Amino acid sequence: MPAMSSISTPQKIIIAGGVAGGMSCATRLRTDQQRLSEQSLITVLERGPYISYANCGIPYALSGVIPTDDALHVQTPEKITAWFNVDVKTNTELVSIDRDNKTVMVNDRVTGQKEIMPYDKLVLALGAEPITPRGIEGADGKQVFHLTTLEDLDGIKQYIKDEGAKTVVVIGGAFIGLEAAENLRLLGLDVSVVERLRHIFPPADGDMVYPLEKELNAHGVNLITEGTVTKVTPGEVELASGRQIPAELVIMAAGVKARLDIPKAAGLKTGKTGLAVNEFMQTSDKDIYAVGDMVETPNLLLRGLDYPDKNKMLALAGPANRQGRLAADHICGKETKYRGNIGTWVCKVFGKAIGMTGLSCHQLDEVMGKDGRQDGRHDWVTVHPVNHAGYYPGSCRLTVKIHFDVKNGKLLGGQVTGPENAGVDKQTDVLAVALTAGMTVEDLEHLELAYAPPFGSAKDAVNMAGFVAGNVLRGDVEVVHAADFAFETSKGKRKSLADYFVLDVRSPKEFENGHIDGAVNIPLGDLRKRLDEVPKHKPIISYCQVGYRGYLGYRILKQDGYDAVNLDGGYRAVFEGGFDDGLKPVIKRWAPN
Amino acid sequence: MPAMSSISTPQKIIIAGGVAGGMSCATRLRTDQQRLSEQSLITVLERGPYISYANCGIPYALSGVIPTDDALHVQTPEKITAWFNVDVKTNTELVSIDRDNKTVMVNDRVTGQKEIMPYDKLVLALGAEPITPRGIEGADGKQVFHLTTLEDLDGIKQYIKDEGAKTVVVIGGAFIGLEAAENLRLLGLDVSVVERLRHIFPPADGDMVYPLEKELNAHGVNLITEGTVTKVTPGEVELASGRQIPAELVIMAAGVKARLDIPKAAGLKTGKTGLAVNEFMQTSDKDIYAVGDMVETPNLLLRGLDYPDKNKMLALAGPANRQGRLAADHICGKETKYRGNIGTWVCKVFGKAIGMTGLSCHQLDEVMGKDGRQDGRHDWVTVHPVNHAGYYPGSCRLTVKIHFDVKNGKLLGGQVTGPENAGVDKQTDVLAVALTAGMTVEDLEHLELAYAPPFGSAKDAVNMAGFVAGNVLRGDVEVVHAADFAFETSKGKRKSLADYFVLDVRSPKEFENGHIDGAVNIPLGDLRKRLDEVPKHKPIISYCQVGYRGYLGYRILKQDGYDAVNLDGGYRAVFEGGFDDGLKPVIKRWAPN
Repeated sequence: MPAMSSISTPQKIIIAGGVAGGMSCATRLRTDQQRLSEQSLITVLERGPYISYANCGIPYALSGVIPTDDALHVQTPEKITAWFNVDVKTNTELVSIDRDNKTVMVNDRVTGQKEIMPYDKLVLALGAEPITPRGIEGADGKQVFHLTTLEDLDGIKQYIKDEGAKTVVVIGGAFIGLEAAENLRLLGLDVSVVERLRHIFPPADGDMVYPLEKELNAHGVNLITEGTVTKVTPGEVELASGRQIPAELVIMAAGVKARLDIPKAAGLKTGKTGLAVNEFMQTSDKDIYAVGDMVETPNLLLRGLDYPDKNKMLALAGPANRQGRLAADHICGKETKYRGNIGTWVCKVFGKAIGMTGLSCHQLDEVMGKDGRQDGRHDWVTVHPVNHAGYYPGSCRLTVKIHFDVKNGKLLGGQVTGPENAGVDKQTDVLAVALTAGMTVEDLEHLELAYAPPFGSAKDAVNMAGFVAGNVLRGDVEVVHAADFAFETSKGKRKSLADYFVLDVRSPKEFENGHIDGAVNIPLGDLRKRLDEVPKHKPIISYCQVGYRGYLGYRILKQDGYDAVNLDGGYRAVFEGGFDDGLKPVIKRWAPN
Repeated sequence: MPAMSSISTPQKIIIAGGVAGGMSCATRLRTDQQRLSEQSLITVLERGPYISYANCGIPYALSGVIPTDDALHVQTPEKITAWFNVDVKTNTELVSIDRDNKTVMVNDRVTGQKEIMPYDKLVLALGAEPITPRGIEGADGKQVFHLTTLEDLDGIKQYIKDEGAKTVVVIGGAFIGLEAAENLRLLGLDVSVVERLRHIFPPADGDMVYPLEKELNAHGVNLITEGTVTKVTPGEVELASGRQIPAELVIMAAGVKARLDIPKAAGLKTGKTGLAVNEFMQTSDKDIYAVGDMVETPNLLLRGLDYPDKNKMLALAGPANRQGRLAADHICGKETKYRGNIGTWVCKVFGKAIGMTGLSCHQLDEVMGKDGRQDGRHDWVTVHPVNHAGYYPGSCRLTVKIHFDVKNGKLLGGQVTGPENAGVDKQTDVLAVALTAGMTVEDLEHLELAYAPPFGSAKDAVNMAGFVAGNVLRGDVEVVHAADFAFETSKGKRKSLADYFVLDVRSPKEFENGHIDGAVNIPLGDLRKRLDEVPKHKPIISYCQVGYRGYLGYRILKQDGYDAVNLDGGYRAVFEGGFDDGLKPVIKRWAPN
């Protein structure tokens, strides 16, 4: 039975999945500018009992930070039907797709009744499902929960109430795992987090997440990195190391994977991580679209790079919503292209926050390839600017790390950490827009940002990062990173402190409070007079607390003919980045995971 | 005596002015990459007793929000000399420039001694001085103060203490005036603000500043707009209207003007508002540079527009600092061009904040000229997004207005208001970067910004503004603004409510709480069923609270063949923008000042 649709017959559009991407598509379809969009028959299938709920808020409803999970219901089926004339079928799941006949089979999860429904256009927004890592014995125990749906939330709350659970192990140290850990800790539980990789927030660099790891510890969370759970028993979790951790409750937050069974069975083309779509969100069948966590889309930063996996599945609400809009536009005859992802995110961990956009240094090491790494094609700088004028109450320091192409200065990524209310999100957004616009680090120097003492600085955080990176790019300063002493990096072989005269240009009091092993203290103000104390036969590392006085010391030395380098980010980047005073890593860091 | 400088002789560089731009220049000069920059002789002349102090913080030191004005001393001359080997002469003012002999005459303000100093390069950073409006009798009274220097600050504090002043009139309703008003109010004084123009923050549009004006009133500040002070007597201020206002203290914050007497006397070229400089900050004499509030620089937004005054004096710390760096670079042989201004600013007014970047609508009306206005070359949209996920505690609404070129969608400016800690600065910065990058409103739709419930929304504030503006740009929706009913605007002649059927698509409860005169209430969910109640012979205005349901109503009407428009920003934009229920202005607004 061939499709009978024509311009004069109302289009039948079925959307499978009623949360972010699917619901954006449904509402946009009805409001699209096409003359007949009011007449089209739009059906949304949602396998769960709720549509369009705020799944990003679920961890916060555990603790009551969001007082009741009613607040998470963004829309009701009744409202969607009334406002958009969309037929919403909850508790109804897609079973299979018959592409030849352009029909889908759906299953009513309450009655078990199956139904065949015809479509002119089908939009898949099936999302992703949580992964249960292989080889965990007992992972199907009744005390083991995921935390991605409202049912999961209700299940966990009920379980804690019924069983009086006091100990919990969260498996996975990314967004959901850490948000769950924070909120379960707020409930008073003993919380452990087990992360398989070397550090939490795997997309970010180890030196940026170390402050967050310390924050977790400071709030009594027992964090275990490079830990592999092998067994779950009632009351305990066992690691590959043999270590046992009390766990009356287990939250499985070890990542998600695209739901591909149904599209695969229908013969739709898939990539390595998700369903393949073109820039209009069409699958390999032109009448079937797919959006959200189940598809893989190109990373903008990988354009022009010789890297095989440019498309990746991405579980982020913003892109899902945009993709839903674009699929609707295309169904209605408007060709707006999806522009790809840059991977912007932010997360709160107790009193601190971390944000990132673009690619981190360890990701750049990976995607630029071994040759790229040996050629030192990318570099980074670390600055510690204040969130707003230092003299205005509430001022505090952020850490901003930006990564750039050393050939042309193009911004490749940025990471920001700091106190939760200090504008980590703002700096991340400024960098995200600059990255999207293809700006260079020198462009960051010129940005004219909003300044008044309660809000920023005349030289704002991103300007400062631009100044320092611009100096590096132009060869106005040579820097070494603490990491250069711990690992081989993109800039070359591992360095040794013994090859340098290490000059601490801070005040004697700062020096006493901690310094790099073997450093000699000559305060910056004395350096010109005491240059004879600095040997000429060795290269010099100049450093201070955050990098600026170290840079001034570097300039004095260079102009006097010394072979000098400045320590990127200063002593603060050493201890905050997880290095000891011998510039050895306290934490294992961004060697590719 | 001709200049004797050569590459082998140390360069003598004199910088007149030791605050933002001057001090940035001095420090950058010493750290510049030029081989001989360590040898150059750098002298900073500062007419006041302090250098490099944080003048932006002065208003906050009035009230003690900044606890002591010691906090405002960013640098001391001793530290600058020790770190940078710069000779700092405080209490020393530039008297005159002898360009032929390349010397300056300076005056020691303590001893009265004059001195002639030779220079190879001279950098002028004389700043701006506060204006005392003409025609104010008694403006030289001892109770009348400016508020731009630490001496002013000390003087006011002492005067309040000595005289027990309880009433104050602030003349001028821009940054300094309003910050002064807030901080004097915090001290418990009875504060009046008299602004000569139609509204406070003259660069912004009236509909955006109205919430700030209400905030001032709510905190007991007596705000008088379109008020001209004619007379100051001990204890009172008199307006042109004859009205008398108690004022034991008067703060004169009526704007600033570039200090041009000395450069003019030296024959340097000036523009209408400041000293003329090229993109390397050189004046008409290649050995004399000028930076900061005293120069006029091009507004990036005016490029390509047929508008005579593209260069303007700008009293902002960020540009001053950048200019100082660039002048230093050029003196050291590096050609980095000043890229022009976009005019980004932000200001706190009690519990609210306002930020702006680019040109406001009334400024666009002005610079695009009468023809531009008649052609409707620019338009705007108003949205009221939440600062972060509505279900996360502390969520509140912002107002974001963006202005764009209707030919190509290019962003021309943005204005943001909201509670003081709700990220007004963040949204302003995001728009500022987008503006700098030459983005269109459609580019804003695609921006991938940082989202987690405590920080943002999956469709973030600037995305929302982009969606709505994109819809307008593409003709997917036609909007009217409340202002269209009050004034002739860039979109054409003044409209009349009587020509429309006004349809309120909100709930009956919202309707009862206030609605536009003569509106008929049909809730959105009922509209499809009750279309027979909407007449076909008249154009329809559809509106809701913030604009979205109004848009959905508009779509339903359009698809049924109605002639419809949506009300931009909804009912909230009406009352928040200073219009009454008849869409008449409660405040007088952005007709050009």
